[in-house]
Amino acid sequence: MNAIDTTCINAIRMLSADAIEKARSGHPGLPMGAAPAAYALWQRVLRHNPANPDWVNRDRFVLSAGHGSMLIYSLLHLTGYDSPTLADIQQFRQWNSATPGHPENFITPGVEVTTGPLGQGFANAVGLAAAQAHLAARFNTDDFPIIDHRVYCLVGDGCLMEGISSEAASLAGHWGLGQLIVLYDDNQISIDGATDLAFTEDVTRRFESFGWQVLQVADGDTDVDGIEAALRAAQQETQRPTLIRVRTTIGYGAGAKAGSADSHGAPLGPEALASARQNLGWSHGPFEIPAEVSQHMNARKAGAEAEAAWQSMFDAYRAQHPDKAAAFLQLISDSFCEGWDSELPTYTAADKPEATRASSGRCLNALAPHLQGLMGGSADLSPSNQTLLKMCGDFQRGTYAHRNLRFGVREHAMGAICNGIALHRTGLIPYCATFLVFVDYMRNAIRMSALSRAGVLFVMTHDSVAVGEDGPTHQPVEHLASLRLIPHLTVIRPADGNETAGAYRAAVVRRNGPTLLALSRQNVPQLDGTSAEGVLRGAYVIHEPQAAPNLLLIGTGAELSLCVQAANVLAETGVHARVVSMPSWEIFEEQDAAYRDTVLPPDGPPRLVVEAGSRFGWDRYLSCGDQMISIDDFGRSGPGEQCLAMFGYTVDNVVDRAKALLGKRTN
Amino acid sequence: MNAIDTTCINAIRMLSADAIEKARSGHPGLPMGAAPAAYALWQRVLRHNPANPDWVNRDRFVLSAGHGSMLIYSLLHLTGYDSPTLADIQQFRQWNSATPGHPENFITPGVEVTTGPLGQGFANAVGLAAAQAHLAARFNTDDFPIIDHRVYCLVGDGCLMEGISSEAASLAGHWGLGQLIVLYDDNQISIDGATDLAFTEDVTRRFESFGWQVLQVADGDTDVDGIEAALRAAQQETQRPTLIRVRTTIGYGAGAKAGSADSHGAPLGPEALASARQNLGWSHGPFEIPAEVSQHMNARKAGAEAEAAWQSMFDAYRAQHPDKAAAFLQLISDSFCEGWDSELPTYTAADKPEATRASSGRCLNALAPHLQGLMGGSADLSPSNQTLLKMCGDFQRGTYAHRNLRFGVREHAMGAICNGIALHRTGLIPYCATFLVFVDYMRNAIRMSALSRAGVLFVMTHDSVAVGEDGPTHQPVEHLASLRLIPHLTVIRPADGNETAGAYRAAVVRRNGPTLLALSRQNVPQLDGTSAEGVLRGAYVIHEPQAAPNLLLIGTGAELSLCVQAANVLAETGVHARVVSMPSWEIFEEQDAAYRDTVLPPDGPPRLVVEAGSRFGWDRYLSCGDQMISIDDFGRSGPGEQCLAMFGYTVDNVVDRAKALLGKRTN
Repeated sequence: MNAIDTTCINAIRMLSADAIEKARSGHPGLPMGAAPAAYALWQRVLRHNPANPDWVNRDRFVLSAGHGSMLIYSLLHLTGYDSPTLADIQQFRQWNSATPGHPENFITPGVEVTTGPLGQGFANAVGLAAAQAHLAARFNTDDFPIIDHRVYCLVGDGCLMEGISSEAASLAGHWGLGQLIVLYDDNQISIDGATDLAFTEDVTRRFESFGWQVLQVADGDTDVDGIEAALRAAQQETQRPTLIRVRTTIGYGAGAKAGSADSHGAPLGPEALASARQNLGWSHGPFEIPAEVSQHMNARKAGAEAEAAWQSMFDAYRAQHPDKAAAFLQLISDSFCEGWDSELPTYTAADKPEATRASSGRCLNALAPHLQGLMGGSADLSPSNQTLLKMCGDFQRGTYAHRNLRFGVREHAMGAICNGIALHRTGLIPYCATFLVFVDYMRNAIRMSALSRAGVLFVMTHDSVAVGEDGPTHQPVEHLASLRLIPHLTVIRPADGNETAGAYRAAVVRRNGPTLLALSRQNVPQLDGTSAEGVLRGAYVIHEPQAAPNLLLIGTGAELSLCVQAANVLAETGVHARVVSMPSWEIFEEQDAAYRDTVLPPDGPPRLVVEAGSRFGWDRYLSCGDQMISIDDFGRSGPGEQCLAMFGYTVDNVVDRAKALLGKRTN
Repeated sequence: MNAIDTTCINAIRMLSADAIEKARSGHPGLPMGAAPAAYALWQRVLRHNPANPDWVNRDRFVLSAGHGSMLIYSLLHLTGYDSPTLADIQQFRQWNSATPGHPENFITPGVEVTTGPLGQGFANAVGLAAAQAHLAARFNTDDFPIIDHRVYCLVGDGCLMEGISSEAASLAGHWGLGQLIVLYDDNQISIDGATDLAFTEDVTRRFESFGWQVLQVADGDTDVDGIEAALRAAQQETQRPTLIRVRTTIGYGAGAKAGSADSHGAPLGPEALASARQNLGWSHGPFEIPAEVSQHMNARKAGAEAEAAWQSMFDAYRAQHPDKAAAFLQLISDSFCEGWDSELPTYTAADKPEATRASSGRCLNALAPHLQGLMGGSADLSPSNQTLLKMCGDFQRGTYAHRNLRFGVREHAMGAICNGIALHRTGLIPYCATFLVFVDYMRNAIRMSALSRAGVLFVMTHDSVAVGEDGPTHQPVEHLASLRLIPHLTVIRPADGNETAGAYRAAVVRRNGPTLLALSRQNVPQLDGTSAEGVLRGAYVIHEPQAAPNLLLIGTGAELSLCVQAANVLAETGVHARVVSMPSWEIFEEQDAAYRDTVLPPDGPPRLVVEAGSRFGWDRYLSCGDQMISIDDFGRSGPGEQCLAMFGYTVDNVVDRAKALLGKRTN
């Protein structure tokens, strides 16, 4: 390690520590401890172009230990990205700054994914590497490796304690993602104290059991050459992902706080900060970057050259393989070819009943030929979720060009891997599936999808107590509400085949955020009046009575057909019921007020909602006197039809409740 | 293996398969494949007394692969439990039966924990083993090992793919829980097909990396003696948990479906069922149990003897160690000693502001001397969650008598381990802690806690955007609502020190269900009028204006103080605002209507709710014209006070919104 290396590393350390001190908030321990590893990677190995953070073949870097955000802001700044500027860094963690407390991909260019919740970034990195492998297999030729970037990820012990990282690591090893290289900032300190309080497993052996190469750097505090050598060795291994354990000192240099949990999550304070200056021989003031550092670390020239070289290669590729190049450009353009939705199924009321999970399977298979970016799969429930693309094989070691992903029973990693695939930003449209009740296993991944604006499709089947015999552990009750709660997540619960097609139409074009589909296990009839177009308005009238309505029946999903049948029965007794299908609250609330008021007139007739789930949240659409047939307790084991009936989901009960609501005596 | 062993094993297989066939629903593959392992365990090793499923020193058995529920029902029936009867088994998976689709501890005696969501049972088993180790360390003497039972668990590949099992296994290895023995039904088949589609890691090596002993049984289909030998070897290992890989054939015997995913999750059907009868040489009709099987497997005599021997030992223990015995009996009685809550802190408005997480820390430490069963900890956030019991050391290998648990960054396993501790049913009161936003990592464990009636305390701090600089990944917004949604979970968000004490009073005595506390990171003032007693009513008036109220301000947690201050400001302008503190919806809704109506009069003045979270769900307490200051989007990074202010949580804004609500012009 030369003197300039030491100076640059100390610049990263001090810029980070000073910014945290100024903010009076942040985590200096990681940036100070992991600075040598980050420097070795960014200075000597990483291929990126600060002038174009969107260069498609850039290496991806994920700071899974997102609390160390000042590390990435320092790196982005020092390597010459337009943002964050020094002024931005002085606004670290302030309202509206370009340098929020944890890295946010929608705020700071160069930040690939949003991190903070531990382990998510690790699983995102697996998704990014899967996307790389897939595109490489589809588009690279022997002469033109147009997508051959690597995915680097920096994790701490917290990331590795989380179950999601075990799930993701097992899959990455299974898939043999050789372009994935993870640096483990092994500082042996967690918030509670030494990691041996709770974390004494043999991490090396564990990752080897997953099929990873594991390398070690004994002195991660000063041995930049050793770190670089490990990174090079990792690059040589193309059949396995690599974990590099870099033994570091948390808060390196920060006096008594170095090597202690005290440096983890709070500013160093004047004393330890002064110690750091002294220990590191740092004579510069806060936010003062020595010219030699800026000069040495600035990567704009090298980055521009790298991208230019790639562009030349791509031009030659385009000349020799025009079809492949066109397909590649079409894919990454995020635009859809004409007629992409032309084969989505349509239904009439004469068509036979079908579970919406089956309609969903048809939709996926109707889209796959047209949407070359569509890829995904299930957490070991493919036959139940009906998510296999029949025209495609499995994405596996050696067959990365295929589009069916086999996630195994790993819901949490599945969600985060799909976030990574979406945030590869190359036109891939990932979908993933499990039973609706198990969104609880992947909830933070879904939330991160919404926060980080990833266009993932969550295909959730078995969406009510109609699941039946499997009982309360498998019957979602509160789950629709729990999902509608998540900001920027669009939830769609289609009622039949036409609505399922509409749900896919809405979901596929939503590239800046996730959509979750809730689908029935059981068959549902094809209804008169439902339509894909209706779904695109969120809620719409599917049945209008012969006279002015004196009742509104609002249904979603499988229960909509009960509303239609009840309306017909009620018509015989002089009750004029309008039936509203309401597959998506979020889409409905995006419509203008005039439209919303035509569907649900503000001072209109009383309303009865029929949905096999919790009432929680529905009150926003209900006034005093309105009612809902809901389930506000756990489900029960029994045949699905019987479960529905016992919880009140029969035509008779809808009719009775409607009459009671209108103050009429039931028969 | 003798002929009788084979006959008994086949009885388990066929009873299970026949019940599933009759139910037209269920999972025959596991019971048929794992029958030899289950038989070896239950027939030759397990210490239990069918006549008394509550015997405190019984071995615990957890069927983590809960879809194989017919296996445990068969075992319970054949070993002589009063329930399930043969008639119960013929009602398998029917509404209201004693044999629901997945094992439910609140339905079927002998079922220790509710399983189905994969991996939960495994983590529950770690909790059960931790409880065993703790009690043994506290109460056993050299001569009297009054708690020396083992915890056996049966898992499938699905359980082992889930991240929660990695988390729990790492902890179990770290803790060195030698009484934990896990049988892995290694049938190499998952729902999607062969496990090598997604699961090619080296499981043996992984568990060894966690510090486990791993044993193998090559022929789990017929080698009962080999399985028994492995179980005995596992018992000999007292310093490490043991995983026994038992290589089995899913659906063993079931003709073409044996060894195939087709036998996993659906009845065999007449053809394969007939094949099974033929292949297994089973000449008996459905539900016909040969007398020799009943005789051989009935464990009532051996069980009664085992319990009687234990009781004799316990009597001798009581004679020699009367204090220890009394303490043990007091603990397992689930009753609290007089004055258990006498040291809970009380506050007056003159006391200085304090974060409710700090008040919570005081409460835990005030309770610990009196509640000898209180034990718990944090997912590596002890200093932030303030959950350390200062009078206690750490529960670690060799110091199991201590009550501070160090979970590491493993929220999901933490929750499920606490469920296991609670469901050990020996008076232990487990608590666990993380940031509120990370309930998303452990949501299914919380749901299972509520479903299985486990008296766990979930201590969740940093409960709003007031978290500040850490930003949206760390700021809960929709989380309070998402928790209020879960049936049978009591959520309490106390406003100050007195309410925090009240929250603990409510939570501790709730032994048949979980309670979640949402606590502030930031300091809050001690308010006039708050009280522990008020919390026990869920909502109550803390400030009554001088004249009849023309406005109701409803606050929870840290925002309650804004309501009080706003009421004082409003009073100066002639607005008479009543202030209602509403720490717990669930407790409030348990109150009688008369009380509820005094607090929130049905036709009373307009209401303004102030809570730093989603409006979702609050509409049930709001009529047209009522309003709420809510956050219905992700949070933002910035200083906590500023975040609160930008989202409208200032006294001025509450005053303005109140005036607007009343149609008055703001100044």
